[in-house]
Amino acid sequence: MKRIGVLIFPDFELLDVFGPLEMFGLLSDEFTIRMVAEQSRTIASAQGPQALADDLFADDQRYDILLVPGGRGTRREVGNGKLLSWIRNRSAAADYVTSVCTGSALLAKASLLDGKKATTNKSAFRWVQQQGPSVLWQPRARWVEDGKFVTASGVSAGIDMSLGLIARLCGEAQARQVATWAEYEWHSDPDWDPFADVHGLA
Amino acid sequence: MKRIGVLIFPDFELLDVFGPLEMFGLLSDEFTIRMVAEQSRTIASAQGPQALADDLFADDQRYDILLVPGGRGTRREVGNGKLLSWIRNRSAAADYVTSVCTGSALLAKASLLDGKKATTNKSAFRWVQQQGPSVLWQPRARWVEDGKFVTASGVSAGIDMSLGLIARLCGEAQARQVATWAEYEWHSDPDWDPFADVHGLA
Repeated sequence: MKRIGVLIFPDFELLDVFGPLEMFGLLSDEFTIRMVAEQSRTIASAQGPQALADDLFADDQRYDILLVPGGRGTRREVGNGKLLSWIRNRSAAADYVTSVCTGSALLAKASLLDGKKATTNKSAFRWVQQQGPSVLWQPRARWVEDGKFVTASGVSAGIDMSLGLIARLCGEAQARQVATWAEYEWHSDPDWDPFADVHGLA
Repeated sequence: MKRIGVLIFPDFELLDVFGPLEMFGLLSDEFTIRMVAEQSRTIASAQGPQALADDLFADDQRYDILLVPGGRGTRREVGNGKLLSWIRNRSAAADYVTSVCTGSALLAKASLLDGKKATTNKSAFRWVQQQGPSVLWQPRARWVEDGKFVTASGVSAGIDMSLGLIARLCGEAQARQVATWAEYEWHSDPDWDPFADVHGLA
């Protein structure tokens, strides 16, 4: 049973968190989900709806898979030393460290991606790049895997990335089964990315 | 400004709720979101993560758009008279009544869909049919519109249905813009449905 720790902070992006959690959550024999917040349990998303954290930083839990979402809250959290050091710390103990959208800005700012390939939301690409000048940012990618770091492009790309990670951990057939349960057309090619063109990247 | 009331109950399906809310939430000048629960504010999803209701039934609020999700909790809630009567009541006051996945079983059980076209999750199709024998259930559809009732197929279909409703309310260009923001490939044809074949329907 693998424990997924999902970081939530004020103004996180709803689908960055709950798209991946739907996919992992459909395999409840394989994964347990813990939502983690810094200090307060009640966290409002960028879209308004509030989620409840299961763990706080002080609980000092270990997770096999870390998931860091994006959302406009990342613009503030890149300056939150306590949160960045929690990410650094929990990443060292995790088998996989994943991000969706501008969540990769937090991984970059925590110096976890230096010299590694990564991607992010295509409409925020230049801002994210500035958070980690030594990262090998990929402008055209649905998601990017570099060792234990798996970073997805914007918002809904987190769903495709999660299915990719499920394929890696549980086999491709299992990932396709999960997508079918969710009636989701999985973009299983990590290089599929029509949104790079929309934003004139690559 | 249109108010969206989203019903949540124990064991609701995460993406049924948060897929649509991501899309509507990206248009914060057009829509405000309220999550509504019967009695307790803290509601655990079928996948584990907990959400917090903004309103309770007792607050007696009115919503322009009602959203009823699915999830394994619907198997219990089809027998919850108080919840069905709340749905009936709030539907009468709403401009649009939407559902995702087995959420349409609750609309059917509340006798709102009799003689109307509707759809649901393809893997639960026969059970949902039994909840409303007088409904004109459509076995092949991503989503179905019949007057003010808009019902989506399984889980991720709620995202496509929501973009369809955004197109109806705010124009197609706006819906396409929202999909691009979320880096989502919108299935804009309500008849697109490869999952009907997977389950040998239609």
